[in-house]
Amino acid sequence: MNSTISELLQAVRTQQPLVHSITNDVVTNTTANALLALGASPIMATAIEEMEQMVRLVNALVINTGTLTNTTILSMERAARIAHEVNKPWILDPVGAGATDFRLNTNTALLKSKPTVVRGNASEIVALFTASHAGKGVDSTISSDDTVAFIKEQARAHGLVIAVTGKVDFVTDGERVAAIHNGHPLMAKVTGTGCCATAIIGAFLAVSDDPLMATVAGLSCWGLAGEWAADKSAGPGSLQMNLLDGLYQLDATYINEHCRVSWMESKP
Amino acid sequence: MNSTISELLQAVRTQQPLVHSITNDVVTNTTANALLALGASPIMATAIEEMEQMVRLVNALVINTGTLTNTTILSMERAARIAHEVNKPWILDPVGAGATDFRLNTNTALLKSKPTVVRGNASEIVALFTASHAGKGVDSTISSDDTVAFIKEQARAHGLVIAVTGKVDFVTDGERVAAIHNGHPLMAKVTGTGCCATAIIGAFLAVSDDPLMATVAGLSCWGLAGEWAADKSAGPGSLQMNLLDGLYQLDATYINEHCRVSWMESKP
Amino acid sequence: MNSTISELLQAVRTQQPLVHSITNDVVTNTTANALLALGASPIMATAIEEMEQMVRLVNALVINTGTLTNTTILSMERAARIAHEVNKPWILDPVGAGATDFRLNTNTALLKSKPTVVRGNASEIVALFTASHAGKGVDSTISSDDTVAFIKEQARAHGLVIAVTGKVDFVTDGERVAAIHNGHPLMAKVTGTGCCATAIIGAFLAVSDDPLMATVAGLSCWGLAGEWAADKSAGPGSLQMNLLDGLYQLDATYINEHCRVSWMESKP
Repeated sequence: MNSTISELLQAVRTQQPLVHSITNDVVTNTTANALLALGASPIMATAIEEMEQMVRLVNALVINTGTLTNTTILSMERAARIAHEVNKPWILDPVGAGATDFRLNTNTALLKSKPTVVRGNASEIVALFTASHAGKGVDSTISSDDTVAFIKEQARAHGLVIAVTGKVDFVTDGERVAAIHNGHPLMAKVTGTGCCATAIIGAFLAVSDDPLMATVAGLSCWGLAGEWAADKSAGPGSLQMNLLDGLYQLDATYINEHCRVSWMESKP
Repeated sequence: MNSTISELLQAVRTQQPLVHSITNDVVTNTTANALLALGASPIMATAIEEMEQMVRLVNALVINTGTLTNTTILSMERAARIAHEVNKPWILDPVGAGATDFRLNTNTALLKSKPTVVRGNASEIVALFTASHAGKGVDSTISSDDTVAFIKEQARAHGLVIAVTGKVDFVTDGERVAAIHNGHPLMAKVTGTGCCATAIIGAFLAVSDDPLMATVAGLSCWGLAGEWAADKSAGPGSLQMNLLDGLYQLDATYINEHCRVSWMESKP
Repeated sequence: MNSTISELLQAVRTQQPLVHSITNDVVTNTTANALLALGASPIMATAIEEMEQMVRLVNALVINTGTLTNTTILSMERAARIAHEVNKPWILDPVGAGATDFRLNTNTALLKSKPTVVRGNASEIVALFTASHAGKGVDSTISSDDTVAFIKEQARAHGLVIAVTGKVDFVTDGERVAAIHNGHPLMAKVTGTGCCATAIIGAFLAVSDDPLMATVAGLSCWGLAGEWAADKSAGPGSLQMNLLDGLYQLDATYINEHCRVSWMESKP
């Protein structure tokens, strides 16, 4: 397991996949920097006029609905549809899906273009897959533990990988379920740590044929960077900086010593 | 006074109010991180389609006119009107109000929805309340000291709290006037320190019934974080990081030892 | 040479020119902070309604096409046209010019308003001046060395200064060619280091009548800040922070000891 994660990380650094993000206004810089620190090549583009060429050019697509506008929704829908058509892996981050009808409807519509992976906190995932309001904005109010059965069922029904992140992260393709115990509570005090997790998974999707393993690798690498960083940080300001240094410094030795991924069930 | 500030800070950390910001493109990340480091829950949303639900959901609203577009203006106007209607506290940061007609007209229109607080530098405040051009972009060219009489009059006329920030910050509700001597000159070399001050006041407005005290508490906490940070910083880059750590670390002991707020007059 | 650079840096700090950036969503914060750390006054504004007043107000204009939309294109075109009309220096950063038709067409159109300087990596510059697709997104895939003859020819043909940045930066006005050897490879792992270089050149253009020298000074100061910063950094996160501290701390002594600019030919 650890060696698979290390190999995937090495593949990202060698191949430097081009990862296209249509993300929210708050985390553009952090997301691009996380992808660069990891070893990938970020590109940000939101204009519908260049969506088709851009999606064909890149190796993976990340869509994050944190600060939607009626213009970016059209770009997201086109990008997702093209990614699906040309078989590029893409990941959806349904930020605050349950907060307003506008977010919920947009995310529900995006699901039709069959994301490879969906990553969110428990309330976002529950809102999205039940098409109902839940939770308080972007914060999770539902225990991740309670949602494992739910995400297995939804992953199977929709034919995709679902990742619910929280104190422990759970990832499933409807059959296998991984639990990732890496990460640090201080990460919740830095904006965009969830969005960066999503983008990092996007980079791993670009170099792997196994979306479940790519998602596990992405989340554990990000969690490991968080642990490395928290050790050196006096608060969320220094943590944000050290997270990037941690991604950059992450290596097989650190992964071997600190990675805590377990498989919950081999079969549903 | 110091104990009131400490209690309000504790209230922010306990209640974790949801603070909705419609702010400029430059400071979205910094603003969200400042609110998180303080202990509040930030949410950013600009689409008019979700303004009504969002404003009803949150505990306070922050509007900052730093990078207006004709689309965001409509969202700001709707958000402000709803906040006023449903009695949610909201704060206006009229960035560069005097720089162009477009900014001045937008800010003048927003005033009609009766912000709880307006915070700006001296030239922005003068431009806004005289509806005339003053100052050089977002920089203040008028001494804060000269404007105390002016803001008292305007606060009384408009029935709101006005904060003019500069070397010394002045806050008034038209009757009481507080002078806050916390802060550090290096803060002026980091973009968005004024915008963060506004957002932090927003968090305090969400947990207090006294807008004047909430504003004083917000500005002094931010200034104290700046002093804590400047001690540890080699320049504006490290200051930006340390400001967030400072907000996170701020406690009653530090407030007691360093807070420098004075009341200028008990009556107009 | 070194003393000219130091004098120009001093002029920026003394005059604090107002530099207007219409830039991409990823680097707004970094760009504003780089300008502040250098000693200039940043202003960001994208609404077409205020373009004319804004461009007339400021001392230099920076246009960066990293995250274009059909709305921002109109603002960029108006801003560029006004800058040209009223003789304000302006610099174009054709981010990812070769990646899509949309970017290429926009940048080609902007060239008609005669930028004072164009700065990009080799593939962007080649794409722009041959109006053809080249390179992989925002990354350069062409050696900077191979492009010196090309940029001399283009600079002469278009009557502007061209800067191609990479391992070594080349700057030419069609006659003189400077090679700047400052900088550090880790800078490529931080998003927006190219965009910041462009903005910094913008600040120097505001205080100099010699666009070639202003460009050389801007690129060498930014490279020097990068060297200063890399010495103190454990990765790209700390580098991003230290770059700002480095700009702030940069002085004549450091410039004298570390500046590595050479002139390649005195005549074409």
